[in-house]
Parts: sequence; C-alpha cells; structure tokens
Amino acid sequence: MARYKLTIEYDGTPFVGWQVQENGPSIQGRLGAAIAAFTGETVIPNGAGRTDAGVHARGQVAHVDLAKDWRADTVRDALNHHLSPDPIAVVGCEIVSADFDARFSAIARHYLYRIIDRRAPLALERERAWRVVVQLDVDAMHEAAQTLVGRHDFTTFRSVQCQAKSPVKTLDRLSVSRAGEVVVVEASARSFMHNQVRSMVGSLKLVGDGKWTSGDLARALAAQDRAACGPVAPARGLYLMRVDY
Amino acid sequence: MARYKLTIEYDGTPFVGWQVQENGPSIQGRLGAAIAAFTGETVIPNGAGRTDAGVHARGQVAHVDLAKDWRADTVRDALNHHLSPDPIAVVGCEIVSADFDARFSAIARHYLYRIIDRRAPLALERERAWRVVVQLDVDAMHEAAQTLVGRHDFTTFRSVQCQAKSPVKTLDRLSVSRAGEVVVVEASARSFMHNQVRSMVGSLKLVGDGKWTSGDLARALAAQDRAACGPVAPARGLYLMRVDY
Repeated sequence: MARYKLTIEYDGTPFVGWQVQENGPSIQGRLGAAIAAFTGETVIPNGAGRTDAGVHARGQVAHVDLAKDWRADTVRDALNHHLSPDPIAVVGCEIVSADFDARFSAIARHYLYRIIDRRAPLALERERAWRVVVQLDVDAMHEAAQTLVGRHDFTTFRSVQCQAKSPVKTLDRLSVSRAGEVVVVEASARSFMHNQVRSMVGSLKLVGDGKWTSGDLARALAAQDRAACGPVAPARGLYLMRVDY
Repeated sequence: MARYKLTIEYDGTPFVGWQVQENGPSIQGRLGAAIAAFTGETVIPNGAGRTDAGVHARGQVAHVDLAKDWRADTVRDALNHHLSPDPIAVVGCEIVSADFDARFSAIARHYLYRIIDRRAPLALERERAWRVVVQLDVDAMHEAAQTLVGRHDFTTFRSVQCQAKSPVKTLDRLSVSRAGEVVVVEASARSFMHNQVRSMVGSLKLVGDGKWTSGDLARALAAQDRAACGPVAPARGLYLMRVDY
C-alpha cells in the first residue's frame, strides 16, 4: 500500500463543490470515480480545503491510499485519463509517507480572489472573476485589509454554517493589488473558516467603492457578529492556489 | 445617422467564427441581432478581422451605422443587455466619422497566442490555450521567429482558402516569451492572412520541441509552399487583442 499526494486543478463551475454531496457532482466524487475506474478500489480522497460550489483550484491537495504501489506518474496519467472530460486535472502526484494528511499536515493555504472592475459584462472570464461595475480604490482596500491581518476572532467573516471549533484564527497575509482592470486579493493563513475569504473580499469591496472606511472594516471585525459583514463575494472569483506542508 | 466604433470581447468557443455563416451562430450575427433588438434596424457590423471558429477576442473592432444619434454609452449598454447570455461583450463604444472603416482604416492588428506546456490536461483553461505536453525551448522559438519578421511572401503560412490578393505582407513583431507554464506568442502587423498566426505558431512549436531548427523555419518561409508549413496550431489559443487606427 502507498499513500499518494495529489495536486489538483479544477474549474469549479459545474460542481457542487469539493465535497461529495447528494445534490450533484463534486470534485471529490469525480476523483473517487476515476480512482475506482483505474484500480477498482473504492476510496475517497481527503482534500486540504473544502471549496464551495463554483470555487476554482489551481493547487488543491488531496491524499489517497492505494493498495498497489504504482509509480506516481502512472497514477497521475491514469486519473487524468479517467477524469476526462470533466474540468479536473491532476497536475502533480507524489508518493508520501503514511503520516502525511492533506488537511491536517498543511501549514499554509493560499487563496486568490479575482475582481474585474468595468462596466461591460465579462465574456472571456464570465465564470472566472467577479465583475464590479464601479472603479475600486485598490490602495484603500489594501490599507484596510491590513486591519484583518494577524490573530483575531473572525466571527464576522465566517458563515453561520461554519463548523470550526474556534472563530479565532491567524491571517498571515491579505493583500490587494491591480493589473489593468483586474483587482487581485491574495489571502494566506494556516487555515480559513467557511466563507472567510469571500466574506473578507465582500467587505473589502465596500471599502473599494467608498461605502466603508478602513475604520468601518475594523469595527466590523471587532463586532464579532456575522451581521456586521458586507455581502459575501461570489464563488466564481475564488481560487485555491496552493497548500504548503 | 451616426457611425459607431465598437470594441468587442468574446469567447469564440460556441461560435462558427466572427463572420455570419449558415452553419451556426457567429459573433457578427449575434451583434446584428442585438442591434435589431435595440433599434429595430437590420444592419450587420463590419469587423476588423474575421476570426475563425474558436478564436477569441479581447479587442475586436467593428463599425456600424445607426439611424438615430444615440449616446455611445447607451449603445454599449443596450447591446450588452441584448447580447446576454452570449459570451460577447461590447467593452467600448464611440462615435466616429463617416470615413472610419473598422477593416480598412486599421494600421495595426495585434494577436496573442497562448500555449501551456505541461503534462496534465487543462482544467481551468481548456478552451483558452493550446496544451503542449513537451517543455518548449522558448529562447529557440523567439530567435527563430525573428526570421519571419519583415516583408516576406507568406504563402507557406496562409490557408489555401485565403482570399488575400497578394501573399506578400510585412510582419512587424513576432515575439515568444514564457511566464511559468504559459508560453505566449505575440504577433503584430498591419494585416494578417487567413490562418497566418496559427500557421506560424504551429511551425514555431516544432522549433520549440526540437524537431525544427531556426534554419528549417527559414527554409519553410523561403519555400513559398503551403506544404512546407508545420501543423496549424488550434484555434482555442488565439486572441485578437487590439486593433490600432
């Protein structure tokens, strides 16, 4: 038996999310089906982060145990063969020790959120970014974002469905930058709570369009109250970029 | 009456190409339908470049005459309203003089071709780039590409269906660069012939994977023979980026 670490890219648009659910196709379920088609085994890969419906990944990580010791390249190519035509690709595969756990061994998760601020609808990036029709003040957003960096109670910025035991987390990085009409928010932490990045982005957008000041964002955080959060940003702009171990 | 210059973004995937054809939906046809829905007029926009099926645009340009003098912003917003849910967006609209012609007034066209060279299939960019499984030598490609820059008979690099009167054209720029796994080819000229960019990219790929030398590319050009061209690169990697006037 060997444990494999899979690095996975996906377009989240057609899926109910990472996790197997009864109401539609999931990335985890499709990967499980590809493994079954390849080895005949019924195993469910364990992911580093449970991305929601419509959320994308460049570098989701999952681990899975297979009965036979396959070469890592063979596993990667076979899974990609069986995953086709779903928009899921195993971009990396390596054999890891039995104590590696995609979720619990992770020391950092990196998310990226893409906003395109322009009047016209998105044609090429329709399911790949959040269109905001007003020009955002990126400097104000970045400055305000620094309020959220560090160890805080993030109750304001987590879904009421979040199952994390404690709302206290350490946010290592939250930066906002612009390249042309694309505004990028990058968030890094050991772990995030449910809807945390989209909740922070939704509130930062209020700073960017002038509805909130940096002080309003600080007060929202201090309120430790979900009702103080801005509208949650849509899933289609969010990407799980990388997980560090 | 007023003439409008439209700048248009589109995802070429679901279309038979820019030009109206009987075998399926075209960008030109959808724009015409949006204009008809907005003003009641039956007019067909004239485009700067006839992109093929599957080819994308960030900045296609077209002109159209409308009976009433609408504000440019009104035209842009109304067309976007009627284009929905097609992946076509009018990103710019301005009133121009009656002698402006999207095709004949153009002094430069800029195309970009995206290759992703990696083993794994593409999930997020499936219809947005050409996946090449071997690592390409981008420096060799860029050096060889300079052979094609300048005034030449491009018979080797144009489709046999090309209707241009002369195969002699001046290529102003052909550069190849890499950012991570993304290899970008940028091509600029006053005008291009049918399939010219995709034909040049297909031949440059042979240089990048070591099958051709820079000398082989020069001999292919000198042959002035369509049979000397490498396999034409697929449409999904090509973007009409900008047209200058």
